Amino acid sequence: MATTNGFITLEGIEGVGKSTNLAYLEELIAGAGHEVVVTREPGGTPLGEQIRRWVLDEEHGDVSPEVETMLMFAARAQHLDDVIRPALARGAWVLCDRFTDATIAYQGGGRGVSNELLTTLKHAIQRDLEPDLTLLFDAPIEVGFGRIANREPDHFERENREFFERVRAAYLGQADRFPQRIKRVDAARTLHDVKQEIRGHIERLLAVAEDA
Amino acid sequence: MATTNGFITLEGIEGVGKSTNLAYLEELIAGAGHEVVVTREPGGTPLGEQIRRWVLDEEHGDVSPEVETMLMFAARAQHLDDVIRPALARGAWVLCDRFTDATIAYQGGGRGVSNELLTTLKHAIQRDLEPDLTLLFDAPIEVGFGRIANREPDHFERENREFFERVRAAYLGQADRFPQRIKRVDAARTLHDVKQEIRGHIERLLAVAEDA
Repeated sequence: MATTNGFITLEGIEGVGKSTNLAYLEELIAGAGHEVVVTREPGGTPLGEQIRRWVLDEEHGDVSPEVETMLMFAARAQHLDDVIRPALARGAWVLCDRFTDATIAYQGGGRGVSNELLTTLKHAIQRDLEPDLTLLFDAPIEVGFGRIANREPDHFERENREFFERVRAAYLGQADRFPQRIKRVDAARTLHDVKQEIRGHIERLLAVAEDA
Repeated sequence: MATTNGFITLEGIEGVGKSTNLAYLEELIAGAGHEVVVTREPGGTPLGEQIRRWVLDEEHGDVSPEVETMLMFAARAQHLDDVIRPALARGAWVLCDRFTDATIAYQGGGRGVSNELLTTLKHAIQRDLEPDLTLLFDAPIEVGFGRIANREPDHFERENREFFERVRAAYLGQADRFPQRIKRVDAARTLHDVKQEIRGHIERLLAVAEDA
């Protein structure tokens, strides 16, 4: 790796502990003396937050999977231009709660959007940028469902269980396809064990950055 | 043509008289006893009108050409689902002020978005639907500029003259590529002459519809 910083994305279905572990990752990287930018998708820019509301809040009636996909990638392109690329350019580390793998999992696996559309949009907006590391927090669906039971369900969370099974399968398919970039983290274990594993991944990335 | 109704789009740069002629077309088709749905892009649905404000109003900072393109197609997909396809299905005629040719002209010709992205998005959302007739109102740039001089310029209108030359060239390129569908209407003539020409096109389409 030629850079001295990193672009890390966190992926996984609802309730697998992404938020808790995001805070822990921030602590680890900032603790090593680096600037850390924490952001999320959809969101992260005014346009992105607006699109997040359009897609998640259901206030605009049914949105087709293709519309959802185009809105997600529009938000992502803006996010890359305004937040992610400038942060990486000045040497900061970027921690992003969901990125393109989420669109492939939710809109592709979950809602049946074609690979052709997903691939063209990904290529058009990411060009040669890929995350240096993607942590896929994975657990059986009932684990995620149990953990979110006392939060108000949103549009996606209300969808049925088979939907989430398809999303999970698409996430695992991505991990199989990109084993160097995507590390599956078994999120059904205790938080202590999960933290220990992700610390290992981050320390390896920090060591590579030190050597660069 | 197997259908008894038609999907007509109006295209052209600012100030070439699209609005005036849209009203005239509506009158002609309604006068022949048909239901007419008049709509516009970007817009035509609550999501589309919001996207229209995002893209045209500049209040949200710079939007890249790719973001603009994805937002335009997201709005278009919603517009097709909610307005255009249902209207055509129940036998109404649809008059749409700008459609995909506008994105190819403005975002492609004007702002340099790749053909690959435009073509994939077009295919993904239109599938086999194409307008039955596209009227391209065409005039030298200074004619359009003169006509809009006493209106408040928007984001696109403020862009420079070369931009509009590229947009016009892309529109004319589309007309060369699809001569059956796209009819170039010389908008530098008197309104009387323009109306006479477009009445000819519409009467041919109405006659085909009667025979079907």
